[in-house]
Amino acid sequence: MKPKAADILISNGIVLTMNESADEIQKGAVAINGEKIVAVDHADKFSDWRVSKHIDAQGGIIMPGLVNTHTHAAMTCFRGIADDLPLMTWLNEHIFPAESKLNDQKVYCGALLACAEMIMSGTTCFCDMYLFENAVARAAKDAGIRAVVGEVLYDFDSPNYGPIDQGFAYTEKLIAKWHDDPLITIAVQPHSPYLCAPELLQRAFSISQSNSIPMVIHLSETQSEVDDMQKKYHRTPVQHLAEIGVLGPNVVACHCVVLSSEDINLLRIHDVKVSHNPESNMKLASGIAPIPELLDNGICVGLGTDGCASNNNLDLFLEMDTAAKLHKVSTMDPTVLDARTVLRMATIQGAKALGLGEITGSLEPGKRADAIVVDCHKPHLTPMYNPTSHMVYSARGSDVSTSVVNGRILMNDRKLQSLELEKVLKEVNQIAQEIRNR
Amino acid sequence: MKPKAADILISNGIVLTMNESADEIQKGAVAINGEKIVAVDHADKFSDWRVSKHIDAQGGIIMPGLVNTHTHAAMTCFRGIADDLPLMTWLNEHIFPAESKLNDQKVYCGALLACAEMIMSGTTCFCDMYLFENAVARAAKDAGIRAVVGEVLYDFDSPNYGPIDQGFAYTEKLIAKWHDDPLITIAVQPHSPYLCAPELLQRAFSISQSNSIPMVIHLSETQSEVDDMQKKYHRTPVQHLAEIGVLGPNVVACHCVVLSSEDINLLRIHDVKVSHNPESNMKLASGIAPIPELLDNGICVGLGTDGCASNNNLDLFLEMDTAAKLHKVSTMDPTVLDARTVLRMATIQGAKALGLGEITGSLEPGKRADAIVVDCHKPHLTPMYNPTSHMVYSARGSDVSTSVVNGRILMNDRKLQSLELEKVLKEVNQIAQEIRNR
Repeated sequence: MKPKAADILISNGIVLTMNESADEIQKGAVAINGEKIVAVDHADKFSDWRVSKHIDAQGGIIMPGLVNTHTHAAMTCFRGIADDLPLMTWLNEHIFPAESKLNDQKVYCGALLACAEMIMSGTTCFCDMYLFENAVARAAKDAGIRAVVGEVLYDFDSPNYGPIDQGFAYTEKLIAKWHDDPLITIAVQPHSPYLCAPELLQRAFSISQSNSIPMVIHLSETQSEVDDMQKKYHRTPVQHLAEIGVLGPNVVACHCVVLSSEDINLLRIHDVKVSHNPESNMKLASGIAPIPELLDNGICVGLGTDGCASNNNLDLFLEMDTAAKLHKVSTMDPTVLDARTVLRMATIQGAKALGLGEITGSLEPGKRADAIVVDCHKPHLTPMYNPTSHMVYSARGSDVSTSVVNGRILMNDRKLQSLELEKVLKEVNQIAQEIRNR
Repeated sequence: MKPKAADILISNGIVLTMNESADEIQKGAVAINGEKIVAVDHADKFSDWRVSKHIDAQGGIIMPGLVNTHTHAAMTCFRGIADDLPLMTWLNEHIFPAESKLNDQKVYCGALLACAEMIMSGTTCFCDMYLFENAVARAAKDAGIRAVVGEVLYDFDSPNYGPIDQGFAYTEKLIAKWHDDPLITIAVQPHSPYLCAPELLQRAFSISQSNSIPMVIHLSETQSEVDDMQKKYHRTPVQHLAEIGVLGPNVVACHCVVLSSEDINLLRIHDVKVSHNPESNMKLASGIAPIPELLDNGICVGLGTDGCASNNNLDLFLEMDTAAKLHKVSTMDPTVLDARTVLRMATIQGAKALGLGEITGSLEPGKRADAIVVDCHKPHLTPMYNPTSHMVYSARGSDVSTSVVNGRILMNDRKLQSLELEKVLKEVNQIAQEIRNR
C-alpha cells in the first residue's frame, strides 16, 4: 500500500530516474518521506497526496544528485594557487609547502567551502582523500552532504597524525566514530603504490575488508609512476597491487590513466572500481584514461573532479561534458561515451563505485532522497530535445536550482539552507591571505 | 586633458586590461563616455568625476568582453537535436533536413536566442556564418551585441538565395546595407574549399579585398576533407587556397585541425588568422588543432564555440577552460597554452583575428566600450590567487554579472536589458516544436 503523504514532493519536471531501465518520466514527480524516496511517478498520481513541502521544478529536470568519486575537498584553499606548471614544480614548490601548514580547522573551512560549491553545482555525494579527514567528515555532516572520507596514508610522516601507525589508529578511530552515520562513510585511503610500502597497502586492504568499507587509492596516474614501479618492482602499479593481494570489489582506483591490457584485465577480474578524473588528468598533462576500453570490459567507472588545485573547480556537470568530448576526440569516434553513459558515470555508476549503489545515485523508491532540480528556463538550455544530452553537453552546475540530500533540502532556489555561506567565504579568504603572506 | 565626466563608471574590481603589456589594476575602474572607453585607471583617480551610472564590480573582475570568432548562431534552434552520432549521419539525417526548413524569421529568432546566451555568458562580439544572415545582423543589432556576419556561400543552391550568383548579390547587398554600422561588420563567407569551386573562392576573396572586410572560411576541419582535396586537387586544403591566391591577412580560417608543416608555414606567410573551436572538434571527433605550433609560428589565433548543435552551448568561458586543458594533455606538457595565452585568445587575439583589434578585445582608452564584470563572490571562485587563471579554469559564463557593448549596458545583475527574454525563449520553443512534429 502506497503512502499518501509526503514530506517533500518535487514535481512539474522531467524525471531522469537513472534506474537500470533508464526510465524518463515526462511530467514526473518524486515524493520524499523522512530520509527516503517513497515514490517516483507521473505527477498526476500525486494529486490526492498530502504534501508538507512542494518543490516546483518548473518544467526543468529532476534527477539524482551527482556523485563525485574522487576529490580533495579542502584543496579549495589552494584553488588556482599555481597553474600551468610542470607536475613536480607544482607539487614540491606550491602544494606540499602550502599543505604543511594545514590543521584541523583549516581543513574544516576548506572542506565546508567545497561542500557549498558541490551542493550549489548538483553534487550530493563525494569521496574525499586528504589530511585531517575527521574535519572533512564534520564539514560534510554540518553541510548535510553525503560523503565517503578517509585519511590519506603513506610511508612518510603526515602533518596530521605523524608516523603511519598513528595513521592507522586515526583511521580506526574514524571508523568507530562515524559508524552507522546516515551521511558519512569512512574509507581506508592509502595514497598510491609509489608512496606506500606493500605492508602498508596490505594492512589498509585488510582493514577495509574486515570493516566492509571502500579502499580508495591513486593508481597509475602517470607514465612516470608506471616507470618508477617497473624499476622498483618490475611490474606495473596494477600488477603490483594484484601481486600483493590488495585488489577487490571494494577498491576504488583513482585516475587509472596509464593501463596495459593486462592491467585492465586485472581490474576486471578483481571487480575494481575506477574513478575517472579527466580535467585534472588534462590540466596536469597526465594523459587520457582508456575509459571506453574499461567500459567495454564491464568495469564500473565513476567520475571525479580531483582536488580543485588541479581543475580548478568541483563542477561535475563540466566534468561530464569534458569526459564525453575528450574520449570522442581521443578515439576519433563521435559515438564513444554517449551522453547516457556519461550521465550514468556521474550518478548511479559513481554510487556503485563507492559501495553506495543501494543508497544513492538514482531516483527509486526505498533509496535515500538525494535529488537535484535543474532549471532549464534559460537561453543556453533552450530548446530541449533530449534531456540526457542536455545535462551533459549544455548544462552547468550553476543551473541547479535545488539540492536535496537524505531528505533534507540543502539548497532551494540557489540559496544554501544548511550553511552560512558568507562566513565560509570569509574564513577561506583569511586562510588564503595567510598563504599569500608567507 | 582628461574628461572629468563619464556616462558609466565600472569600479571596485580588478581590471584585466588585456592590453599589450597585460596590465592588471588591483582596485581599478573603467570610465565610458558614449560608445567609447575614456579612461582605465586606479579607482581612486575617479573620485572627482561626475558619473551618470555607477556599476559596482564588488571586488570581482572587470575585463573586455569575450570574442567568439566562429559560430552559427541560429543553430541554437537545433541545440542537442542529435548527439553522439557519426559526422555524416549527424549532418545528412539531422542538421541538413532541419536547415532546409529555415527562413528569415526562424534565423532571426534563433540568432536572438544566441545573442541572449552570449551576452549572458560574457561574449560581446561574435563572428557568424550561416543562412539568412541579414536576419542575424538584425538580431545582433536589436540585441545590441557586436557581430561580424556573412552569408554562407557554396556551389549548390542555398535555401536562402538560390544559385551562387544571387549569393554574391545578397552579400553585396549586406555590405551596402550595413556599411558604417557601429556594431555590424559584414564578411564574405565561402563555406570551405570542398564545397566551393576555385572561381567561387576567388570571387569571394576579391570582394573581401576590395571592401577591406574579412573572408571567413572553414578550413582543414577533418582528415577526410584533406583526403578529398588531395584526391581532387593533389594538394591540401591550405595549399589549394594558397595556389588559387585566396590567402591573406583578412582571411579567418576556422578549425584548422589537420595541418601539415607546410600548411602552417603558408598560414604564417600569408598572415591568415585562425579560429580554434576545440569543443566542437572534440565532440565531432574531428581532431585536435595544433594550436601551440600555430602560436609558436606567430599566427594569430582566436577562440570560437562553433554552432551549438556541436558543442552544445556558446559559453566561451568553458571553451577557454577546454582549450587550456586539451593542449596540455595533447602535448603531454602542463605548461602549454597557459591561462594568459588562452585569455588573450578569447579577447584581444580574437578581436585581431576579425580585423577588430583597434575596436574591441581590450580595455584601453579610445576603444569601443565592450566590457564585462565577473562576480567572484561565489564558492567556486573563492579564494582568488590569480585573476587570469581564475577566469580560465574556475569561472563559467554564468558568473558574468554585467555586459556592456559599445557603451550600452546589455545585462546588469544578470538581467538582460536589450531583449525580451521570455518572448525569445517562447519563439524558439515553438520552432523546436515544429521540428519535433516533422
